Amino acid sequence: MKLEEIAGLLNGKIEGDSSLEITGVGKIETAKKNEITFISNPQYQKFYNTTNAGALIISNDFVIKKKRDDITLLRVDDPYLSFLKLLETFEENNDEALIGISEYCFVGAGTKFGENIFIANFVNIGKNCTVGNNVKIYSGCKVDNEVIIGDNCTMYPNVSVYKGCRISNNVIIHSGAVIGADGFGFVKSDDGTFKKIPQTGIVRIEDDAEIGANCCIDRATIGETVIGKGVKLDNQIMVAHNVEIGENTVIAAQVGIAGSTKIGKRCMIGGQSGIVGHLTICDDVIIGAAVGVSKSIDQPGIYTGYRARPHREDMKVEVGIRNLAK
Amino acid sequence: MKLEEIAGLLNGKIEGDSSLEITGVGKIETAKKNEITFISNPQYQKFYNTTNAGALIISNDFVIKKKRDDITLLRVDDPYLSFLKLLETFEENNDEALIGISEYCFVGAGTKFGENIFIANFVNIGKNCTVGNNVKIYSGCKVDNEVIIGDNCTMYPNVSVYKGCRISNNVIIHSGAVIGADGFGFVKSDDGTFKKIPQTGIVRIEDDAEIGANCCIDRATIGETVIGKGVKLDNQIMVAHNVEIGENTVIAAQVGIAGSTKIGKRCMIGGQSGIVGHLTICDDVIIGAAVGVSKSIDQPGIYTGYRARPHREDMKVEVGIRNLAK
Amino acid sequence: MKLEEIAGLLNGKIEGDSSLEITGVGKIETAKKNEITFISNPQYQKFYNTTNAGALIISNDFVIKKKRDDITLLRVDDPYLSFLKLLETFEENNDEALIGISEYCFVGAGTKFGENIFIANFVNIGKNCTVGNNVKIYSGCKVDNEVIIGDNCTMYPNVSVYKGCRISNNVIIHSGAVIGADGFGFVKSDDGTFKKIPQTGIVRIEDDAEIGANCCIDRATIGETVIGKGVKLDNQIMVAHNVEIGENTVIAAQVGIAGSTKIGKRCMIGGQSGIVGHLTICDDVIIGAAVGVSKSIDQPGIYTGYRARPHREDMKVEVGIRNLAK
Repeated sequence: MKLEEIAGLLNGKIEGDSSLEITGVGKIETAKKNEITFISNPQYQKFYNTTNAGALIISNDFVIKKKRDDITLLRVDDPYLSFLKLLETFEENNDEALIGISEYCFVGAGTKFGENIFIANFVNIGKNCTVGNNVKIYSGCKVDNEVIIGDNCTMYPNVSVYKGCRISNNVIIHSGAVIGADGFGFVKSDDGTFKKIPQTGIVRIEDDAEIGANCCIDRATIGETVIGKGVKLDNQIMVAHNVEIGENTVIAAQVGIAGSTKIGKRCMIGGQSGIVGHLTICDDVIIGAAVGVSKSIDQPGIYTGYRARPHREDMKVEVGIRNLAK
Repeated sequence: MKLEEIAGLLNGKIEGDSSLEITGVGKIETAKKNEITFISNPQYQKFYNTTNAGALIISNDFVIKKKRDDITLLRVDDPYLSFLKLLETFEENNDEALIGISEYCFVGAGTKFGENIFIANFVNIGKNCTVGNNVKIYSGCKVDNEVIIGDNCTMYPNVSVYKGCRISNNVIIHSGAVIGADGFGFVKSDDGTFKKIPQTGIVRIEDDAEIGANCCIDRATIGETVIGKGVKLDNQIMVAHNVEIGENTVIAAQVGIAGSTKIGKRCMIGGQSGIVGHLTICDDVIIGAAVGVSKSIDQPGIYTGYRARPHREDMKVEVGIRNLAK
Repeated sequence: MKLEEIAGLLNGKIEGDSSLEITGVGKIETAKKNEITFISNPQYQKFYNTTNAGALIISNDFVIKKKRDDITLLRVDDPYLSFLKLLETFEENNDEALIGISEYCFVGAGTKFGENIFIANFVNIGKNCTVGNNVKIYSGCKVDNEVIIGDNCTMYPNVSVYKGCRISNNVIIHSGAVIGADGFGFVKSDDGTFKKIPQTGIVRIEDDAEIGANCCIDRATIGETVIGKGVKLDNQIMVAHNVEIGENTVIAAQVGIAGSTKIGKRCMIGGQSGIVGHLTICDDVIIGAAVGVSKSIDQPGIYTGYRARPHREDMKVEVGIRNLAK
């Protein structure tokens, strides 16, 4: 791709060789002659002198002290967003078109597909499922009976979806995720043994959600476990039965959410945090990393600590603890 | 299913339309006209006025203030247990009979099957295994050589069982669980590299255990890692080599138990807790969520905190910490 | 295997029946007549009187108080290391030679194999991959396009490797591990939704690394996520995009390392610890279990606590906290 094409795409101004052939994007520290990179953060300005990139995206007001002849500049309004756009462009160019239903997959009776479908080898889809348009299901996935999958979904290798779950449009599920395994519910008998409570509900994942690798989202005992619209889950997250997660909430890796807890919209939860069952977390709550939440939260704000507190209070606790050491 | 049939099943008394056709069970908030639900907890009594369920299970002494004509009551001794029984009944009706060994699975030489077996497509079973009666193994499972599986076991999709492991009767293993991977054992060499210690033992899972999705239970270095009779493991739990877990112990999601630790009978361990290696936890211990256990426990009771303490003592610590913030 | 052969192998001296036939190794508590075991730790000397093993490896200076006739001794310099050597010997004898490419796997165009390869049924390898000599890939693994795998690697069942990742020599990857899933990167839009940042980098795993079951190692946004030479990862570890882990670092189960953090050489990290993103941990750092690291560490040493501190300081904090309870 010629640099002038890229300039057109990003609505930028070239200073240097507009015919430069760019084959990919790189980090400023490691980009090569035929790659383009960017500087956005002022802390990275020093790399202007050392980068080996052939082209560099900078902002319109970026000041060059000592000009280099071996680097072509592309000035734009927002170098970071421009760079992200380029990342997408190059990725699309690289992605091969995956279309077709393998002869070495299985599809149960009554299952219907939309158009432009890719079903890989060794995929096993049950009966009476509905799969929308532009869906990609990679090798080793198992989709059980009566599952509904919307348009534009991608399921990476070795995902398991238990029966009856509903996945809406534009959902990405990464490898090894398990959607709809039984919730953890037992009744204690008089002899001390535990009897399984049948888990007859489902998991519903709404539009635009992304589910990380090896996540587990359990089916509801009755009703639905719900992953809301636009929710982003990092890897190895555990979402227990009957949990509901509100729109555009983002959760980092290894978080665990116990049964029946409801989490609001636009929350952000740091890695390894845990939330006990039957709580309600309101909208716009930020929970730090490795935080233990054992009470409902009804005020937006930042919460941190081994036992979750408003962050300000937790910082006072931390100062107190630090003083203990003296 | 007619309501009078359900009443017979639950030994209940109908107040209303005994010929009502019930097609499923629901939660009191969301149940529909053709579904049955229940009220057990007094906090839910208010839903009597608002539920859309066609039938409602209540206790014999439940007092109705303002009778509704559009809802048929079914009075029983224990509404919750009656409801669980119904859940099972409807689930059994829904489950299709899965029987037969797929033509698209592989079974090694010397492997023997009991009766009434279901082996899905893309299952790969090694040599010299023994599989009991009424066993279901779903798509994508790999069972390596010389594994023994008892009667009535279910293995959901994409489970991996390494060679020689032994799984007893009535065991359920959910998707993505890994049974018998190598324990984490190395010897440090003089040059700072680590040399692998061969892990030659197995995992033994006893009767009635349930293993959650994406759990990992490592094989013993020598001997056995043991999951006792009736043990219930939630999802994403890590059980290291040579651990032994006693009968009817229940462990919530994301717990980690380090090597050679022995856990007693009837213990309950909360989510995300960690137990270091080579400890002994006696019978009837309750460990909270996100608790760190670094010493053996020889007294039954409740233990909580970042560094496990008897719960009462931990609560005093918590009060002290709260005061630090002032 | 005759005991005299074992003595030759270990350069040991037999006291007893050198023609004894040994069929396996066992733990001192459970070894049987035809098995060999060892005593290294003085605390285990008492088991000399009770073990049922037929043969026992002890050190040259081990003193027997009351000699048993039913047990043959094998004296060596270091009983533990000798025993490990035996473990390997017996394991090699047990392992069947797995060679050949199954007719029931798929291999994309342009993919090249070395010699002495084992590719199991239901393995799916993409286009333009390179697979070295003596590689074993078990059932259900998916290796996407353009992946490079060196010599002597083993991939246990149901591993997923996303496109373009590079795995060097002598690498072991356990079941359910996911190598190269998308890093967790999004840009917040003005309407509160999150837009995915394309993750175009790869994962590089260097020589002699071992990756535990159900681990997740995310691909870099740009560039590489790096698992260094000789690194050992236990199960269920999360390594985020652009993380780099230095040579011979060892990490216990359920640890999470957030994006772009760099960890030095020869570090040891305890189970369930978490390290936030964009930090640098220097060489030779020891981090305890369940430790939260939120600042870079530039001094070797031991760090512990909910908020990581030098261990000595943390112990003072712990004493202070204990006093709070009084």
